[in-house]
Amino acid sequence: MNSDILREKAGKLWENYVKHEFVIKMKEGSLDLESFRYYLIQDSKYVEMMLKSLLRASSLAPLSYSTKILKSIFDTRDKGMEVHSWLLSRLGISHEEIQNTGYSLVNYAYTRHLYYYSTKSWEEFLAAWAPCMWGYYEVGKFVKDSPNELYSKWAEFYASDEYKSRVDAILEALNSIKYSESLVTPFINSVKFEIMFWESALKKEPTLIIGD
Amino acid sequence: MNSDILREKAGKLWENYVKHEFVIKMKEGSLDLESFRYYLIQDSKYVEMMLKSLLRASSLAPLSYSTKILKSIFDTRDKGMEVHSWLLSRLGISHEEIQNTGYSLVNYAYTRHLYYYSTKSWEEFLAAWAPCMWGYYEVGKFVKDSPNELYSKWAEFYASDEYKSRVDAILEALNSIKYSESLVTPFINSVKFEIMFWESALKKEPTLIIGD
Repeated sequence: MNSDILREKAGKLWENYVKHEFVIKMKEGSLDLESFRYYLIQDSKYVEMMLKSLLRASSLAPLSYSTKILKSIFDTRDKGMEVHSWLLSRLGISHEEIQNTGYSLVNYAYTRHLYYYSTKSWEEFLAAWAPCMWGYYEVGKFVKDSPNELYSKWAEFYASDEYKSRVDAILEALNSIKYSESLVTPFINSVKFEIMFWESALKKEPTLIIGD
Repeated sequence: MNSDILREKAGKLWENYVKHEFVIKMKEGSLDLESFRYYLIQDSKYVEMMLKSLLRASSLAPLSYSTKILKSIFDTRDKGMEVHSWLLSRLGISHEEIQNTGYSLVNYAYTRHLYYYSTKSWEEFLAAWAPCMWGYYEVGKFVKDSPNELYSKWAEFYASDEYKSRVDAILEALNSIKYSESLVTPFINSVKFEIMFWESALKKEPTLIIGD
């Protein structure tokens, strides 16, 4: 299956991503709240551009797959938004703060990377997008028993059956396409971006890039 | 004029870009060769994606402006390539090395940024592109008397009338459009990317992102 091949090509990078220091600290409950706050703001910005890229790529896709993926996302969006809003409110993050905070360099690079592939081809977009969706399911399962209520609540959503239905729809689409070496680069770069994304939150890197 | 407004909006960032430590060291001849080598490889990768983005954006542009810009670039391309090839050969950089070297994070972010705007609108693409082309003319004039032959030769091209004809065509197109606040973000972010681009070469930052 394409998904297994790509994951194997990513090699150790996959483990570095889903078992990153940031993830382990969430699981143990030792992650400092400021790093989580930083992460949550950057992630909110990421998700917006990810959705825009998904919509753009969907226009290039076989309708049967794109509608299935979009349905799985919209069917479970309320639950995701509920957890998200609860976290934002607990951390005192307003929508204005998200809008007014710039992108970190890695977040800007990662979102433009998704966008780039969303205009190139549906196949390459799927490969670029899969690490985020698929990896978070694994991260969710790993973190969900965290002693820290914020982190366990955050993880519960990604470990949920609702979230899994999204991942299943995406991997089904990814596995339905003919394997091509051109899938490897977008997939592996996205895994690298995920690692750098955790990294940037641990280091609270500058958020200098303004804009959408 | 749009170009003057945008440059003023960039404020001190513009000076930080065109009089960056990297630039001053080129002028003085004290820039270490490894940083210049690093820069030249990243810049070669940048130019490829910049041209692709230009072509993409051109399809959205009024033909009279896009053809004028493209003509100014193709008319002077031989001279630019000649200097470029001479530099690559003096530094022992092959096309394979350029292909096999990854992108620095800032270079990937910057090239995807140009690409992003090249699909959004001609106007925003022009604003995102102008800092690179315009700024290098100023950098070229500043550096061209460097005691280091490599740096003076590099700068001579950007300080030349041929290069200026490109800048003139781009600024003419930029100034022909109706001013809009939406031009500010792409312009300022590109100035920031230019600063980070010099920075990354001074620090020889990791070049981890593979691909086109």
